[in-house]
Amino acid sequence: MQEVINQASQDLSTIREKKPLVHHITNFVVMNETANATLAIGGLPIMAHAKEEVEEIVSMSSALLLNIGTLWPQLVDSMVVAGKKANDESVPIILDPVGAGATKLRTDSAKRLLEELDISIVRGNAAEISILAGLEAEIRGVEAISQDSDPSTIAEDFAAKSGAIACVTGKDDYVSDGKQTIKISNGHEALASITGTGCMSTTITACFAGVQEDKLQAATGAMIAFGIAGEKAAEVSNKPGTFHAALYDAISDLTSADINDNAKIQTFAKDLA
Amino acid sequence: MQEVINQASQDLSTIREKKPLVHHITNFVVMNETANATLAIGGLPIMAHAKEEVEEIVSMSSALLLNIGTLWPQLVDSMVVAGKKANDESVPIILDPVGAGATKLRTDSAKRLLEELDISIVRGNAAEISILAGLEAEIRGVEAISQDSDPSTIAEDFAAKSGAIACVTGKDDYVSDGKQTIKISNGHEALASITGTGCMSTTITACFAGVQEDKLQAATGAMIAFGIAGEKAAEVSNKPGTFHAALYDAISDLTSADINDNAKIQTFAKDLA
Amino acid sequence: MQEVINQASQDLSTIREKKPLVHHITNFVVMNETANATLAIGGLPIMAHAKEEVEEIVSMSSALLLNIGTLWPQLVDSMVVAGKKANDESVPIILDPVGAGATKLRTDSAKRLLEELDISIVRGNAAEISILAGLEAEIRGVEAISQDSDPSTIAEDFAAKSGAIACVTGKDDYVSDGKQTIKISNGHEALASITGTGCMSTTITACFAGVQEDKLQAATGAMIAFGIAGEKAAEVSNKPGTFHAALYDAISDLTSADINDNAKIQTFAKDLA
Repeated sequence: MQEVINQASQDLSTIREKKPLVHHITNFVVMNETANATLAIGGLPIMAHAKEEVEEIVSMSSALLLNIGTLWPQLVDSMVVAGKKANDESVPIILDPVGAGATKLRTDSAKRLLEELDISIVRGNAAEISILAGLEAEIRGVEAISQDSDPSTIAEDFAAKSGAIACVTGKDDYVSDGKQTIKISNGHEALASITGTGCMSTTITACFAGVQEDKLQAATGAMIAFGIAGEKAAEVSNKPGTFHAALYDAISDLTSADINDNAKIQTFAKDLA
Repeated sequence: MQEVINQASQDLSTIREKKPLVHHITNFVVMNETANATLAIGGLPIMAHAKEEVEEIVSMSSALLLNIGTLWPQLVDSMVVAGKKANDESVPIILDPVGAGATKLRTDSAKRLLEELDISIVRGNAAEISILAGLEAEIRGVEAISQDSDPSTIAEDFAAKSGAIACVTGKDDYVSDGKQTIKISNGHEALASITGTGCMSTTITACFAGVQEDKLQAATGAMIAFGIAGEKAAEVSNKPGTFHAALYDAISDLTSADINDNAKIQTFAKDLA
Repeated sequence: MQEVINQASQDLSTIREKKPLVHHITNFVVMNETANATLAIGGLPIMAHAKEEVEEIVSMSSALLLNIGTLWPQLVDSMVVAGKKANDESVPIILDPVGAGATKLRTDSAKRLLEELDISIVRGNAAEISILAGLEAEIRGVEAISQDSDPSTIAEDFAAKSGAIACVTGKDDYVSDGKQTIKISNGHEALASITGTGCMSTTITACFAGVQEDKLQAATGAMIAFGIAGEKAAEVSNKPGTFHAALYDAISDLTSADINDNAKIQTFAKDLA
């Protein structure tokens, strides 16, 4: 457990040193916010979605982030083109299936990406990941309302079925490879008061995945780092406008010591769960 | 008059309790800002414009907001598809005709939406609503420069002709159903110093319309609430960057007591005007 | 030299008085940010990219800004349509070739715009301008990594070849018409900690170009004004979230006296360089 935390600390330093370039094909609501989150943690963002250029962009990138909020059919085609190139060049793909389960277009698009591409990590809320795991869930807009299973089981189940690392976020976050599941209890409710914090957590995940081969470790480190930044920002303000500004400050200020001192994680293997 | 204010207070509480889902088909400049304004007042935003999914989205929504800033022809097609479904399911439609009068595309698109859809509320500046009412006005970019009629008359005239509630914003705001017109004198000039505050006021209107059947009441309540939030934010800062952050804080902090204590409205019937 | 500074001060006052309308065809990451920067300096922004309306919009504008971040092929077609109308009506065009050199689409698009349109000012980083001048440079995402020539030579060379004013930004900024080159040493490293500050500097350039015929002067004034605003914002905070908010405050607060007191420029003719 302490090993995972130590490695997360180390990975944060590596991000700042290597400045991984993260290629985002993402939604229009959070483009600015996720670019700024990437810069704040120490990476370099590039937003590019034209089919004509995504292969070149992904080839120079350390991670490819696919986010299906505000999608339209041609954008999914660009995601597939970029994703195939990413797979060819061993660039990890991180998928954020925003609103999977809310509409057929979103569910089908997320499933298509999972089928046609080798995806390293899927980061979503419990309902989105439930739907993709073939479980029952209720979604209202892009918010998870309820799901039959507990998030730990959802993460484990999805990871076991898909072969991707599952990262199910909510009050607590659960990261699983289908065998081992890690619960991260960092974060703050103020994160739910502004739009795009889920997408930002996916961006931070992509930054960690850009420097860390072990994707269970990468997703766990990202959840710890982003959660602690949220806690620190909420100490400055828990009102949405000023919290939003404080969040970038906190991500940028985050140190390896902060991670070591504040990480709250719990690991359990399948048979112990 | 006090009844209208009391109801606005009550509607604010209802928004926080019921969390109306507001489906936005909107412009790229303010997607993040209007999503955050929706969250701050207590609603849930969803931004979705693909023709393939707008019917599903609008079916689960409490209001549909159509905003024609940064539009292109296919987006208007999506708006019509979403709007027809909204009409079928009695989901109120709120239209923000950004830049109507500035270009043929915008004027024609706004008119098409008004012809093909049953729209509940149209929120715009005096020049935009003048143009849609067939009156004269001068527009520069998306700013109203001048119009022949006073805003109260513009609101009344547009409402009488269109059957929609008119909400004409400016130094004072005027809400009219063509018979009764309400002047709201809340707000602050700092609101004009940042982009998207008009669009945000439309979003707040959609949140009120999502919980209040009487759309004259809904638009009035929204103008009061947003105007008071602007006043409170300007007490924190009247410089654009920090005012912007303070505005979300103020929307989020707004209480029913704030509305009761600070609302400045005046009602007049047509024959008394 | 002092003349250039005095004129920059005067131009700032003129922007506030005349409120130049700046038509942006720009990327999705910074639409809100550049609209707010336009308002903060005293101009009026309009974002519009539909081919059906760009000619009408540009006809009423004082400057046309073309920014190729997050571009796709049809957007470039719109830029050409808008640009030809701008040339017909003597509306100055300011080009921001985001990521030129990073992909064939971006390089080709920037070159196409330079060939088909008469462009007044090109504002980019050293690598982007190098590539467009036919020099060698290394780009990672949209960041300049290295280039063979020093930025002063790049600016001079590009201006001499293209006939446009070159504005090469970095630690120091260089503005050149191919004969005279001006070095501006205002600015602060915090500007690199948030996305879109390059795009914002292009927006400020468009505002100055909207009121100043001499484009070498306009670009220089813009670099001074934006650089000083960055310095003043960094006095408030050098953390990215709060710096971002402080930056709009500082642009809005900027006075002619600030420019006179803080401008750091150096002029040199070609043969002295």
